[in-house]
Amino acid sequence: MAAVPTLLVLDADPLPRLGRLTGRVRVLHADDATLADLLPAADVLLVWDFTSRAVRAAWPGEGPRPAWVHTASAGVDHLLCPELVASDTVVTNARGVFDEPVAEYVAALVLAMAKDLPRTWELQGRGEWRHRESRRVAGTRAVVVGSGPIGRAIARTLKALGVTAAVVGSVPRTGIHGPDDLDRLLARADWVIAAAPLTERTRGMFDLRRFGVMQPSACFVNIGRGGLVVEEALVRALRSRWIAGAAVDVVAAEPLPSDSPLWRVPGLIVSPHMSGDVVGRHDELSAQFVDLFERWAAGRPLKNVVDKQRGYVPGR
Amino acid sequence: MAAVPTLLVLDADPLPRLGRLTGRVRVLHADDATLADLLPAADVLLVWDFTSRAVRAAWPGEGPRPAWVHTASAGVDHLLCPELVASDTVVTNARGVFDEPVAEYVAALVLAMAKDLPRTWELQGRGEWRHRESRRVAGTRAVVVGSGPIGRAIARTLKALGVTAAVVGSVPRTGIHGPDDLDRLLARADWVIAAAPLTERTRGMFDLRRFGVMQPSACFVNIGRGGLVVEEALVRALRSRWIAGAAVDVVAAEPLPSDSPLWRVPGLIVSPHMSGDVVGRHDELSAQFVDLFERWAAGRPLKNVVDKQRGYVPGR
Repeated sequence: MAAVPTLLVLDADPLPRLGRLTGRVRVLHADDATLADLLPAADVLLVWDFTSRAVRAAWPGEGPRPAWVHTASAGVDHLLCPELVASDTVVTNARGVFDEPVAEYVAALVLAMAKDLPRTWELQGRGEWRHRESRRVAGTRAVVVGSGPIGRAIARTLKALGVTAAVVGSVPRTGIHGPDDLDRLLARADWVIAAAPLTERTRGMFDLRRFGVMQPSACFVNIGRGGLVVEEALVRALRSRWIAGAAVDVVAAEPLPSDSPLWRVPGLIVSPHMSGDVVGRHDELSAQFVDLFERWAAGRPLKNVVDKQRGYVPGR
Repeated sequence: MAAVPTLLVLDADPLPRLGRLTGRVRVLHADDATLADLLPAADVLLVWDFTSRAVRAAWPGEGPRPAWVHTASAGVDHLLCPELVASDTVVTNARGVFDEPVAEYVAALVLAMAKDLPRTWELQGRGEWRHRESRRVAGTRAVVVGSGPIGRAIARTLKALGVTAAVVGSVPRTGIHGPDDLDRLLARADWVIAAAPLTERTRGMFDLRRFGVMQPSACFVNIGRGGLVVEEALVRALRSRWIAGAAVDVVAAEPLPSDSPLWRVPGLIVSPHMSGDVVGRHDELSAQFVDLFERWAAGRPLKNVVDKQRGYVPGR
């Protein structure tokens, strides 16, 4: 490492606040087009624009490359190309920043579906006063698939609303169910929440068979990654009323094109990958990166280190 | 009272389940048109259709009348004509049944506004993927106006979501602010929830001055009674951006006519007086009435007795 390390920032607006690092780092800025050229000169890559898919394509096969990549996101599926996984480059993520915001967003969707708010908006648009009954949330059952800090925060928030929430992870541990329990839990759930990282093990896990296991009164929520769901299967499940409703904040191809049929599936709520994006998060993400940078520059161990084989930060 | 008392039910679908009273009561059914004729023959009036305004008009000025009126609602403003207030007829309400459902509904509206869900629906209708930032709910401040069991349940539910919730009642008591604190609390609130009974003291309390006290970022929710709000003032406050948004589940004139301008005020959510109306409530309301009836028939003291001068069941 050079005396003053080079930090390459894959930019997005607003820029990260790196003031505390002034004089201790040389900062270069890249966009998708310039990333490949600039990468070999960087000691550290900050993937601030976590919607970019450019890192996979731009990652050098051989030769100089950053020793450390940090992404301002919880998921790392947009980074992990085979060359990066095989390299000794360390990858860290924004573990912790999005947990509570995403949990609140899930609570908002669950309550909106229970209280039939989408229909309320539709009727309001037509000036129709049509009284309906709604569902209690307290006393219902949720399954949260994904046992990272986001999944656990979702379970905590739903429990605060009186929901019985079970969490399913890749391995059973205290308070967390293993994959063997999944189908049994799905069959009794009122709410199924997808909050798992996208890995080779989780890709397409919500398929026609799994929607078929769910109750006709169940609602499905995906705030994880679009690739967790076989989208045609979700559409069939909704159209066939195998499940009562769904909300997806993430889809396979983002941004969803305006001519996608997904926008118009009855009972499906589509939002633009915003569940964790609360006002104030940029400051929190900046501060988290600066803290990690200071650890790295001082030769202390990093935190939030991704297990590149597994595709996420292994839990507690 | 006759050996077998006469129960007059002001009907609505589905009918109350009175099976446990079989043989112990003579049941008559009324609608708005027949109520006045049947009232003098009744020992007990069950106002099952709590949307009806017929009791005020039909209540006998003199002569025989029910000794007890029960309404399957929390509010009693639809009943309390001067003659009923002055009489020795006892009035009871459905205290307790709606508390938690209404609290969940308020949480749904607060979260929907914080997470910008109405705009999400609007954009989905146009097939537009437009990312926005949303607000945290935890760490914000709410004022709940109304210290009955519904108001207190709302405060509990919001607290479970990390909101600091203050409750304002007609008199200060432990954990409850008095009216003198109201304006100070309104000025710092992110969420203002109207959950008071409609009485001569609360009618029109949310007027232009009170909306002017609120923060430009505040949202207002009314799940109490439409008459608590000066509707023109709410519309002006929203159009002038004195407040950021509002949701009303109750309006002055229900059902709201389809040509009402209220349907189309920017930032205003209108729902059709459904906040407490969850699946299963008819059974609970029936069971509550049957319990009260058995107390009454046995000469034991009733519960949920309305203070007719004040217009609500005085609290704990």
